[in-house]
Amino acid sequence: MAIRALVWGENIHERTSAVVKKLYPDGMHNTIAAALREDAGIEADTATLQDPEHGLPEARVAQTDVLLWWGHRAHGDVDDAIVERVQNRVWEGMGLIVLHSGHFSKIFKRLMGTPCSLKWREAGERERIWVINRSHPIAQGLGERIEVPATEMYGEPFTVPEPMETVFITWYEGGEVFRSGMTWQRGAGRIFYFSPGHETYPIYHHAEIGQVLRNAVRWAHNPAPAWEGIAEAPNAPADTAPEKIEVRGERLHLDGEAGFR
Amino acid sequence: MAIRALVWGENIHERTSAVVKKLYPDGMHNTIAAALREDAGIEADTATLQDPEHGLPEARVAQTDVLLWWGHRAHGDVDDAIVERVQNRVWEGMGLIVLHSGHFSKIFKRLMGTPCSLKWREAGERERIWVINRSHPIAQGLGERIEVPATEMYGEPFTVPEPMETVFITWYEGGEVFRSGMTWQRGAGRIFYFSPGHETYPIYHHAEIGQVLRNAVRWAHNPAPAWEGIAEAPNAPADTAPEKIEVRGERLHLDGEAGFR
Amino acid sequence: MAIRALVWGENIHERTSAVVKKLYPDGMHNTIAAALREDAGIEADTATLQDPEHGLPEARVAQTDVLLWWGHRAHGDVDDAIVERVQNRVWEGMGLIVLHSGHFSKIFKRLMGTPCSLKWREAGERERIWVINRSHPIAQGLGERIEVPATEMYGEPFTVPEPMETVFITWYEGGEVFRSGMTWQRGAGRIFYFSPGHETYPIYHHAEIGQVLRNAVRWAHNPAPAWEGIAEAPNAPADTAPEKIEVRGERLHLDGEAGFR
Amino acid sequence: MAIRALVWGENIHERTSAVVKKLYPDGMHNTIAAALREDAGIEADTATLQDPEHGLPEARVAQTDVLLWWGHRAHGDVDDAIVERVQNRVWEGMGLIVLHSGHFSKIFKRLMGTPCSLKWREAGERERIWVINRSHPIAQGLGERIEVPATEMYGEPFTVPEPMETVFITWYEGGEVFRSGMTWQRGAGRIFYFSPGHETYPIYHHAEIGQVLRNAVRWAHNPAPAWEGIAEAPNAPADTAPEKIEVRGERLHLDGEAGFR
Repeated sequence: MAIRALVWGENIHERTSAVVKKLYPDGMHNTIAAALREDAGIEADTATLQDPEHGLPEARVAQTDVLLWWGHRAHGDVDDAIVERVQNRVWEGMGLIVLHSGHFSKIFKRLMGTPCSLKWREAGERERIWVINRSHPIAQGLGERIEVPATEMYGEPFTVPEPMETVFITWYEGGEVFRSGMTWQRGAGRIFYFSPGHETYPIYHHAEIGQVLRNAVRWAHNPAPAWEGIAEAPNAPADTAPEKIEVRGERLHLDGEAGFR
Repeated sequence: MAIRALVWGENIHERTSAVVKKLYPDGMHNTIAAALREDAGIEADTATLQDPEHGLPEARVAQTDVLLWWGHRAHGDVDDAIVERVQNRVWEGMGLIVLHSGHFSKIFKRLMGTPCSLKWREAGERERIWVINRSHPIAQGLGERIEVPATEMYGEPFTVPEPMETVFITWYEGGEVFRSGMTWQRGAGRIFYFSPGHETYPIYHHAEIGQVLRNAVRWAHNPAPAWEGIAEAPNAPADTAPEKIEVRGERLHLDGEAGFR
Repeated sequence: MAIRALVWGENIHERTSAVVKKLYPDGMHNTIAAALREDAGIEADTATLQDPEHGLPEARVAQTDVLLWWGHRAHGDVDDAIVERVQNRVWEGMGLIVLHSGHFSKIFKRLMGTPCSLKWREAGERERIWVINRSHPIAQGLGERIEVPATEMYGEPFTVPEPMETVFITWYEGGEVFRSGMTWQRGAGRIFYFSPGHETYPIYHHAEIGQVLRNAVRWAHNPAPAWEGIAEAPNAPADTAPEKIEVRGERLHLDGEAGFR
Repeated sequence: MAIRALVWGENIHERTSAVVKKLYPDGMHNTIAAALREDAGIEADTATLQDPEHGLPEARVAQTDVLLWWGHRAHGDVDDAIVERVQNRVWEGMGLIVLHSGHFSKIFKRLMGTPCSLKWREAGERERIWVINRSHPIAQGLGERIEVPATEMYGEPFTVPEPMETVFITWYEGGEVFRSGMTWQRGAGRIFYFSPGHETYPIYHHAEIGQVLRNAVRWAHNPAPAWEGIAEAPNAPADTAPEKIEVRGERLHLDGEAGFR
């Protein structure tokens, strides 16, 4: 069964900036989705900020295996209730791939628990993405590095938690470095951040960038059944304890009563 | 110079439950602060939910090296602005020690990015806390284990991110286990979660529990200067790049312009 | 294509102890291999200490996707050259599943870089293996826990490096706990340690233990091409640098010369 | 009480290469020890490969809090018994700081369990060491980066296990990147690898490099009592179990008998 990927795009600069429109006439989300469809095992759909419920109604999120997120100008316009919905679904097992300026999206900051800040410069400089672990699933089909001729610089310190794995580190012409590909887990969900993708350059048309995204979708997909109720803290009555115990001492709660939140 | 610890207590059950009042007539926060003061290198103060700004005004948080957090019934009553203030201060370098039912506090969930849920049973059963790494700073002065005669069971799965270190694992009479002491880092701040501490048992009067808390304060203290501005993403104009570069290609932003958030 | 698993058994107690022989008349390695074969996607073969080159000649190791290791009495008899061969193949990408008393095997200690010591008691007590992350690939098809009616106790501290993931934690009737399932990565190889499996109890006949082993084989399998030459440190002559540089200053080595080891 | 640091130097190139001799007439180990002594809280001594037992007799290693290791040409000449001694002492709690070409030392490879390989080029190019976490103890007193005017390039992939923390990442003039400062723990011992330090450049005369080394000694120092016996696996007789249990079933071992290794 195909992996159900959903590409979420903010879809603003593509309509307001002539530069971006020329590079991505159908929107970046559609270019990314097209890159994903080069893998026959991935079914890719799109959603945008402007759609009702930002294109992320409950039922659709529930049917998504891996969500890709590109946002920049309008992080603050994303509805908190929808951010919570997406976060809960990541906890249940949906993969999440956060792209470029998505480092400052509500959903990424909430899942990381850190500022997710960095340093930036828009000078069309050269970027060289080094593959740190060539046997990682996300690095399959790549050489030792990817060369991006013109990029926005994103520089360290990148204030995220220590990752589970560092997959890529970037060298910039202007002298900075950046951990450009990292992984984390939150609940049952796998998360990958990938920094290349500034909207004024044709980065998502780059074949190797597409390869990374396809690999990342496969990596982030958790085929386990959704972990429903992962956010609940159930009471376990004493008579259901694996070992026989006698209730002693003082209590605040009655058997089976809900805890405080 | 002494470490400035601040013990935050929800301070509700101590006033509304006869059982808890009897165990902690001055409130659990004061019992915990007294335990900390047994270390002459720690200055311990207290704050409660009922104080103005929950006892956590900006200036006081800025002067705190390590914050200890005990809450249970009223997690939802903690003001979001104050949670954000505390989170920002943790990022800057303040240590945070989250106690027992604080697993469901807003501040802990925000810093972890996960549900922080668990399973629970209030049966006064026996708990045995095993020291996993006896050379860890938080385990100094302890034996191979701590015996707690009556406790609330907190059982796995405990849905937190994989920790930096697992310091303690608990065995329960009723048959469950729990990772009762774990560490993480978020920004410049060190975080320790410690599960024992149910309000209907005299756990914070236990000498070895006090030892753990004192150790944890010392461990969580980061003497580095506060990392001010850690949440900002500064633009680095091209003419300040470490390597000389020529600006090329299209841009969205002017030099020195603020980025989007 | 099927995953090529190889079950390595020390194969001593099965021949010298009447108790073990009765439980595992064909050797534990054959019981384990039979459990793996219940998954049609796994091809399982066996090797033992007594075979030439311990059943691990170069060509066979090169053709193995995942190696399972059960040893106890004769860790010291395993040839160092073969340990190095296996270690190198793990670095290249072969998965390794270390079982029970294999915690003290040469190969596990070498890959961990720690003592891998623990505390033990042989009293036929009850073990309850709690699933810490039910959405982990290794936990698929299990309930919230596995009950083992009679086991050898392996107690903390278990002196291994902090794992990538803690998948299982065990509760023992006698009062101890143990991190009974953990993962690590070394080079391109994934490693899983699983503690149940004492030879005087029928643990490898237990259906859920078989399920864990099959899951672990699938998890440990890295389909990426072998990372050949991973242990080499190649010289990168200056004229092949990605950026044009001029050689300056003093040198120890000539272009393309091998480094010291 | 001062931290007892011991700087181990291979001490070969300083005597055989005119270039190195000129930069380090007293040997690199003495230059490094002098840099450490700028911190009054550190007592620094030296040892070399040529000393009896390489300057690392049992009693001296036992009295060392933090060992610094610089080797290159003669890794293979270091006696295995002494490597084991050092490894055991790290497990007990001694800090270890591995410098530059020490990435291929026996002691580092043993503690990591990986090849520790990398790519290299000796062209006197520029290196810029970025501070990834400015609040880390090892980064105190530094600015956002260290500039090294001439260095040997060490490039990724650097085949070490995922670190506990990445403290520094290096940018090279020739286009590569490197995780130049990383931390790990093994047993009770803290380990820091720091890549700058090629012998044909005056890197250990650089003030900021000295600052890093002093910081690293303080960070790596574990004041806990040595974890003696950490490599032993003691039997815990059934009558000493924390919970009363009745011995059942078949056994291989008698009470208190030593296990197999």
